[in-house]
Amino acid sequence: MGLLHDPHHDGSPLYVSDEAPRLDQAVTVRVRTSVEQPPEAVWLRTTHDAEPVFHAARPGASADGVLWWEADLPVHNPRTHYRFLLVGADGSQRWLTGAGLVDTDPPDAGDFVLTVHPPAPDWGRDGVVYQVFPDRFARSAAAADRPTPAWAVPAAWGDEVAFEPTDPRTPLQLFGGDLDGLTEHLDHLEALGVDVVYTTPVFPGESNHRYNATTFDHVDDLLGGDEAYARLSQAVHARGWRILGDLTTNHTGDTHEWFTDAVADPDSPRRSWYHFRPDGTYESWMGHHTLPKVNHGDPDLRAAMLEGPDSVVGRWFHPPFSVDGWRIDVANMTGRLGALDVAHEVARTVRRTAADLHAEPLVIGEHNHDASADVDGDGWHGTMNYSGFSWPLWSWLRHEESPARAFGRPVPVARRGGAQVVATWRAWMGAYGWKATTASWNILGSHDSARIRTVVGDPAVHRVAAGLQFTLPGVPLVFAGDEIGLEGVTGEDARRPMPWDAPESWDRTTFDTYAALAALRHGHVGMRRGGLRWAHADEDTVAFLREHPEGSYLVVARRGPAEAVALPVDGLGATRARHLLGSEPGSVDLVAAAGVLVVPATASPRFDVWRLA
Amino acid sequence: MGLLHDPHHDGSPLYVSDEAPRLDQAVTVRVRTSVEQPPEAVWLRTTHDAEPVFHAARPGASADGVLWWEADLPVHNPRTHYRFLLVGADGSQRWLTGAGLVDTDPPDAGDFVLTVHPPAPDWGRDGVVYQVFPDRFARSAAAADRPTPAWAVPAAWGDEVAFEPTDPRTPLQLFGGDLDGLTEHLDHLEALGVDVVYTTPVFPGESNHRYNATTFDHVDDLLGGDEAYARLSQAVHARGWRILGDLTTNHTGDTHEWFTDAVADPDSPRRSWYHFRPDGTYESWMGHHTLPKVNHGDPDLRAAMLEGPDSVVGRWFHPPFSVDGWRIDVANMTGRLGALDVAHEVARTVRRTAADLHAEPLVIGEHNHDASADVDGDGWHGTMNYSGFSWPLWSWLRHEESPARAFGRPVPVARRGGAQVVATWRAWMGAYGWKATTASWNILGSHDSARIRTVVGDPAVHRVAAGLQFTLPGVPLVFAGDEIGLEGVTGEDARRPMPWDAPESWDRTTFDTYAALAALRHGHVGMRRGGLRWAHADEDTVAFLREHPEGSYLVVARRGPAEAVALPVDGLGATRARHLLGSEPGSVDLVAAAGVLVVPATASPRFDVWRLA
Repeated sequence: MGLLHDPHHDGSPLYVSDEAPRLDQAVTVRVRTSVEQPPEAVWLRTTHDAEPVFHAARPGASADGVLWWEADLPVHNPRTHYRFLLVGADGSQRWLTGAGLVDTDPPDAGDFVLTVHPPAPDWGRDGVVYQVFPDRFARSAAAADRPTPAWAVPAAWGDEVAFEPTDPRTPLQLFGGDLDGLTEHLDHLEALGVDVVYTTPVFPGESNHRYNATTFDHVDDLLGGDEAYARLSQAVHARGWRILGDLTTNHTGDTHEWFTDAVADPDSPRRSWYHFRPDGTYESWMGHHTLPKVNHGDPDLRAAMLEGPDSVVGRWFHPPFSVDGWRIDVANMTGRLGALDVAHEVARTVRRTAADLHAEPLVIGEHNHDASADVDGDGWHGTMNYSGFSWPLWSWLRHEESPARAFGRPVPVARRGGAQVVATWRAWMGAYGWKATTASWNILGSHDSARIRTVVGDPAVHRVAAGLQFTLPGVPLVFAGDEIGLEGVTGEDARRPMPWDAPESWDRTTFDTYAALAALRHGHVGMRRGGLRWAHADEDTVAFLREHPEGSYLVVARRGPAEAVALPVDGLGATRARHLLGSEPGSVDLVAAAGVLVVPATASPRFDVWRLA
Repeated sequence: MGLLHDPHHDGSPLYVSDEAPRLDQAVTVRVRTSVEQPPEAVWLRTTHDAEPVFHAARPGASADGVLWWEADLPVHNPRTHYRFLLVGADGSQRWLTGAGLVDTDPPDAGDFVLTVHPPAPDWGRDGVVYQVFPDRFARSAAAADRPTPAWAVPAAWGDEVAFEPTDPRTPLQLFGGDLDGLTEHLDHLEALGVDVVYTTPVFPGESNHRYNATTFDHVDDLLGGDEAYARLSQAVHARGWRILGDLTTNHTGDTHEWFTDAVADPDSPRRSWYHFRPDGTYESWMGHHTLPKVNHGDPDLRAAMLEGPDSVVGRWFHPPFSVDGWRIDVANMTGRLGALDVAHEVARTVRRTAADLHAEPLVIGEHNHDASADVDGDGWHGTMNYSGFSWPLWSWLRHEESPARAFGRPVPVARRGGAQVVATWRAWMGAYGWKATTASWNILGSHDSARIRTVVGDPAVHRVAAGLQFTLPGVPLVFAGDEIGLEGVTGEDARRPMPWDAPESWDRTTFDTYAALAALRHGHVGMRRGGLRWAHADEDTVAFLREHPEGSYLVVARRGPAEAVALPVDGLGATRARHLLGSEPGSVDLVAAAGVLVVPATASPRFDVWRLA
């Protein structure tokens, strides 16, 4: 697959002169083509108020086998689509789009996109995010003194997690992790290379997951209350890190103060904050009556939840909480109900409130499928990228016996080859665009899914997965415990307590790989901000380049035994590749011979990164 | 290419129980699969407030080698996406989407879609539309007595058309066709099989194309004035036909009464109806200062142009004009300017005004590229389908020497093989959905493009093009003169006067093919409303089925000499194919042998339709 000889463009600095231009500014966009088989002409096609307009690209300097073309892209609309028409000497016409190179005339959905809206803040694009489920991460000494609430089923730290949907203990089993417990273990995060801490909800709620909040005003006393959050937030910030809250904008708990008020008094001004039906029943999340859906068609609800410094979204930016942003739960369904659809207005409002109160806020929307209408632009900076990153990765690396499923899917994820998976990743990157893809979270698993270790069933393959998570465009989100090889067959089962008291159970090799990957990311701007050029894809191997003016990298992932792969390096401007990171022993520097770099065969799964020189 | 064995679904009656359900109604959707290699399971996936939800499909009766599956699709949102997951006995997973069958997990852009909004009226879906450019169609006796206005360059009917962009006569050359001339020639339309008459603008304007209207209140006296339009409209309706106006909602002429008022007085309430800049200059269509762009951000402009019975859109539904709908010019750019985008509101308003004033109105929006955001739903019923129909067809059938271009494209359309073109058609049908595709206009050429005869350079290939125009999903739009083989290398050149006085120049063979195609369409509901299943695609042949409970059809198009094609007919429920129409002599009925129908080889381009029996 001569992928490295394909014409290429992406949203990275080598190709786009300004990633967040002003309206009506011109941006220089570049295309690389092969000197050996250059197009006769390259045209930039953009849409100007939805009318296609063509601009000639200028051939520029050629070096190392590459002929660069350059064109001026007028940013006439806040969200400007573009693609390139490559005309061959034989009259052939191909389009270069965000989803790849095509020889038909496709609709616009895969076009490259440039928006005038600022990208996610640097810390939100460059960081390593660590996800903590507070009840299961760590207990401070104070935890033992707290009385167990009536709704809870107390559990000891070493107990097995109840996770069957039919087991009534599943949402009620309380292990007693708290925020001071997390604060006490920040050194663990530091050793891993984390710099963004994201906790699932800390509001009081009558469950161990706390997504059924009873109030948004305070931190659950079971977690140590507001003071414990303040201590955590201060400790996080003292290390120069950031902290993210988790807010469900789609629903509250049925014990929430807004909802009990609305139920108690049909004339309550909060009655219209929910979707009550004439018979007194109400809309709820996926039919769960404990999770009543709020009505974002109601201006007062939107004001209370989203708008301004005193709203729920707003007030947590202030002390004592001082969050740096929000992960918004069920963002995909928020503000959508039948004929009502104000989801984008909700996203825009959350982002505006955050921007008014914080110099560099981040807002990430959870989306279970296609978030392309809600990200980029003026909506969420990015999404939890299950569809565009996680499920394709699972389908390449899953163990044959794994029953793990994408959310809602009635069958386990398909097992697919590398070429199919690369095609899938490309399609999603095309749908989301570069800015939203690179700000979205690369997830191997979360509190809502199986653990990656269980999905792949092999520590070596787990490390390959981690390698891709840290090196493909996007922000790695590590669900606490993944780094030491915790298991779990479902989201609920994945919420196993961190075995602080059983260090012998930790997979230190995998931890070290995570730490090395985080260090690689922190140490090399090209690994964070470089473009993405696919180099090779077959059943068991995928390889790509991350290219950046300050250094370029070759990344090779093998899911099992695989033959040597020869990569033509004309056009790379490099004849050597210095080995930086390997998930397994036996790595070597590479030297090109006759214009070809040979990645050696492997007898087992492995992941490697080289720096091109 | 075993296309006929592929699992299939589309929006036609065989597959969807209700094409315009109410909100929250359940619709039965069906999938056909092969009995020989059936999936182990079929799942319907829909999005419920943007959350993917899976519903099991039930295997039903099998007959003729087909196993049918059935599922209940809850129409929870006004625009409901869906697709099918086909799980193989070997664990394989494929998606059946509006763009075809894929073995990756793609974004939603190609999903099937069902909306609660009513489809275009029957006459707008089933008709044959004839496009008339009034200055060039026919002159009544009264035309000779009309004085030539000062702006015009008079031309005799047999004169050559000035069409070079640099020739000042191009927009000014006035041949003097008028509406009574059209009324006098309705028998020609009847002989052709037309039942919808669409004229380009009839408003006064200082050009031969009249897209630069000076008023929207009246018909140009040069065309015979309001009375002539009334006579035309009455004559059209007397035949049981329909008539469509052509309105530019994006701009007016700079001689328009609104604009002269706005220019004369900066304090005029109409000043804000346009986009004046502080320096007194103004936004205009593609920089042409004679075409000032109106401001749909201004509520008064929208009221005057779009809303209610006294608006421009509204008043033409009343006598004396009594239009049955509008073709909206430059719909794609209307209401879009930089950060302003109210295009969808404009479409919705036009449709609502039309629906308030007419029992069965049709609104078609001109779009030069991807109209998927503006059609279906509550916007335009359909579009002028250049991107999804015309350009792919051109790229398959164009003559090697043809310089014809898609609008704005700096190079002639690519010459592509049948498989690529079928892939393109499928992608666009996926993007627009069944309802909008079948209501959109299949165009071989228009007053804005080269003539099809000139594009293909061969009468036999022209007839193949016409065959596809009348038999693929969508509504055939015949640009007056195409049916007798008129030529033209650009849109302006295509506006050649109809040679009424030179009948010897008419291509009668081609006229007869058009008439036969129109009769086929009128006589067979399956040719209008049947589903579309691709049967074969190679370089020089494309074949498909139109299937309907009241009869199914095999359509085969060859662009040149081509080998025989064997089609497996297990699953067709038919062993014979009765020949209905051929664009060339030498057609035969077909009889299946050993489960295979053989379409004979051909030595030259041809187009054939068989009815399956």
